[in-house]
Amino acid sequence: MKLDDARRLSARTLALLLATALRAPAQEPEAIKARYAEIATRITAAALLKNDGYARLEELCDGVGSRLSGSPGMDRAIKWAESAMRRAGLDEVRLQPCRVPTWRRGEALLELLRPRREALPLLALGGSVPTPKGGLTADAVVVRSFAELDALPREGVEGRIVVFDVPYEGYGKTVQFRSLGASRAARKGAVAALVRSAGFGGNRTPHTGALRYEDDAPKIPAAALAPEDSAMLGRLAAAGAAPRLTLELSCSVGPDAPSANVIGRYRGRETPEEYLVVSGHLDSWDVGQGAQDDGGGCVSVLEAVAVLNRLRLRPRRSIDVVFFTNEENGLRGAHAYRDEVAKNPELCVGAYENDGGVERPTSFLITYPSGESRPSRRAAPDSRPSDPATARRFDRFAATVERVHGLACGVAGLGGGGADIGPLLDLGIPTLSPRTVGTRYFEWHHTAGDTLDKVDREDLDRHIAAQAALFYIWADLDERL
Amino acid sequence: MKLDDARRLSARTLALLLATALRAPAQEPEAIKARYAEIATRITAAALLKNDGYARLEELCDGVGSRLSGSPGMDRAIKWAESAMRRAGLDEVRLQPCRVPTWRRGEALLELLRPRREALPLLALGGSVPTPKGGLTADAVVVRSFAELDALPREGVEGRIVVFDVPYEGYGKTVQFRSLGASRAARKGAVAALVRSAGFGGNRTPHTGALRYEDDAPKIPAAALAPEDSAMLGRLAAAGAAPRLTLELSCSVGPDAPSANVIGRYRGRETPEEYLVVSGHLDSWDVGQGAQDDGGGCVSVLEAVAVLNRLRLRPRRSIDVVFFTNEENGLRGAHAYRDEVAKNPELCVGAYENDGGVERPTSFLITYPSGESRPSRRAAPDSRPSDPATARRFDRFAATVERVHGLACGVAGLGGGGADIGPLLDLGIPTLSPRTVGTRYFEWHHTAGDTLDKVDREDLDRHIAAQAALFYIWADLDERL
Repeated sequence: MKLDDARRLSARTLALLLATALRAPAQEPEAIKARYAEIATRITAAALLKNDGYARLEELCDGVGSRLSGSPGMDRAIKWAESAMRRAGLDEVRLQPCRVPTWRRGEALLELLRPRREALPLLALGGSVPTPKGGLTADAVVVRSFAELDALPREGVEGRIVVFDVPYEGYGKTVQFRSLGASRAARKGAVAALVRSAGFGGNRTPHTGALRYEDDAPKIPAAALAPEDSAMLGRLAAAGAAPRLTLELSCSVGPDAPSANVIGRYRGRETPEEYLVVSGHLDSWDVGQGAQDDGGGCVSVLEAVAVLNRLRLRPRRSIDVVFFTNEENGLRGAHAYRDEVAKNPELCVGAYENDGGVERPTSFLITYPSGESRPSRRAAPDSRPSDPATARRFDRFAATVERVHGLACGVAGLGGGGADIGPLLDLGIPTLSPRTVGTRYFEWHHTAGDTLDKVDREDLDRHIAAQAALFYIWADLDERL
Repeated sequence: MKLDDARRLSARTLALLLATALRAPAQEPEAIKARYAEIATRITAAALLKNDGYARLEELCDGVGSRLSGSPGMDRAIKWAESAMRRAGLDEVRLQPCRVPTWRRGEALLELLRPRREALPLLALGGSVPTPKGGLTADAVVVRSFAELDALPREGVEGRIVVFDVPYEGYGKTVQFRSLGASRAARKGAVAALVRSAGFGGNRTPHTGALRYEDDAPKIPAAALAPEDSAMLGRLAAAGAAPRLTLELSCSVGPDAPSANVIGRYRGRETPEEYLVVSGHLDSWDVGQGAQDDGGGCVSVLEAVAVLNRLRLRPRRSIDVVFFTNEENGLRGAHAYRDEVAKNPELCVGAYENDGGVERPTSFLITYPSGESRPSRRAAPDSRPSDPATARRFDRFAATVERVHGLACGVAGLGGGGADIGPLLDLGIPTLSPRTVGTRYFEWHHTAGDTLDKVDREDLDRHIAAQAALFYIWADLDERL
């Protein structure tokens, strides 16, 4: 149709033609893919050309800093997030209040007394009880596994500080000693637990993180050692040097404090009551700047939606950007959000969280809420749903977002999710998350070194671009995921 | 000659024949090379097969720990060194006393007050004066070079804390800000100086090291920041956030304390009064274990000689193993040693120091004491002496030790030396040192993370083996280097 022809058409007819042009191919998979391919290309090109992601992350990291939920830093972060969401062009920005624990790290001191005196760096584990004032002094007993601890006679553990000098076998495996080590040691009479950090590399860098006291064990103080120091204590013990330690932690817990999830809606053009949730967690540990965990995740999802807004592209359904509170030590934000969604779960078409660091993204992973197609944590990342109906939906979705492959970033398999969106699975809502190269994330995770400089601009751009295209398609498709 | 023939010879003739067999080829360069090649192969093979280097380093790092000269740690290290030298089979072990400065780090606190509060990690620079009790609070002024500092009006610096957020352009270049930054800032009225650490990588890791106060400037407190934090202060300043800081350092200086170089002689078989010096420095900074700097250097030279002893190989001249004290903050050990050597400098045929870390060695470098063949610090590492007579000696020496190339480690050019043996150049004594791949040394150098685990066993083995062969040949050759 030439322009002259077009001029002869009534405005109404033209509108109809346009609507048809946009919607007619919906019946035909190849045509759907072709249409979204074109849009995805526009979106990713625009996002890579210009976005404010890194500038937003600098505001958060340098201007706000660390933001343990319940702290003044998190309160500042919430104000910043409201402002950032408004500046990104979201239509409705609101706080969803909840109360969060208020654990304070206080001071931490660890001194090797025998065979020589040396102050060793450490970080109390989140949630740890304090030691008595002045600290506690005891011989160390070093174990390399829970089995080794269990095999020790009680008198070999009682009254001692258990040091878990465990090998790093990936975060997922090694984190059990951080989570459970204190209670396992306490059950055998230990007075404190020190765990090799659940991370690697660094330069005598301890990694904090939450512990979990079990109900049937005394609560004993617990802290993370740098890998260098748990290894040294292991060597000293093996050499018969009987290391002796003084540990002092002045952690404290106050009454629960008010906090909030920050939620901003980018309204959909046709069925705005239906929505896709895209999220990160705004809280961080109290050391470092929470740049990779999870400032980068937050700004990347927000900026992905900002890119759509700048292109004036509105998908059929709304996109809700959610910055969760209290992911690190309680998931209170996640539970408050789940409770709200549960009132009308059918309106929520899917949930996305970016909380694995913003190293170069390689693909997206999906978890389905239903039956056996919901993978275990150990599902192979290239697995496919075995349920035939789910597998068909999976394949169509994967094929449709394939053009995000322009960033070498398509849907790769099962296993996506996140701590904050996990509870939504029980409401029947599928969850997605990005997979990254995952090269160095666990060098920085939960350390004082998780600072802005650890985020590579180009990698962040790729998250933003890939997500912008994914979010648009996902919130626009006829067929739910 | 068959065994039967040999039996008919008198013991005296046999001895003569043997002596001839060993010494006759000395006149002929190819024969010399062939003989040393065979010996070098034996030596390096034996060293790689078995040595106690890593076990010795573990004793020093874990058992003794850090050892700032003048501290109890250094006193323990000196005792350990005497024992280790005796166990290595050295013939005479002695202490060479000297007095050393006693600087104590004390506590260090740095708090960002504006635009938000955050405690920043730091390490006082060695030799720094303290702040007033309770610390000093001032606005930061961030500069990226001395030129930028010099260009500022005095009122832009006076009363402030100067932050040197300089790029890392290699240790040799960047270290000037650590050495001279405090005095340069003080001359413009600054109340303190904070310098980006002279190192890279790590995970929010500050690097300490000595500063040098100039006589014409007030002494102001100075400390090293992690690269992450000098960069953050630079970003905050650039963003107009006018960072404000409180710095408290409680460093102190006591009266000079007794210390000592530890010297052990492996006696030569023919002219034991002549000797080769092979060395490292036993002192370290007070953070970390001084594993790479310079525990590895010390144990590698000692163990190289221990290998010769185990093989019952005695070169013509003696080899003196010297562990220097006070390399890090005064060179008092080096000066005491130089003064002793100066009494009969002609007896000392050469000096070797291993103080660049024990990453994989690649080659040896030589510095000649005489005239223009003495290279500047920036001499290309593959340069050759331009003086013809020196160049001939250089070539013959390089050709002779070439078989150490079995470890891909021969004499590569000019530039070898070390802080402790540098003063010997003025006595006419050539200096050598190993060159390494130099990949990660300045990640660990002068940090709390310079711990045993940073030393790779195989790399240390290669230092020991290459040095054992080098030391034997060098101490045995007719012609001096």
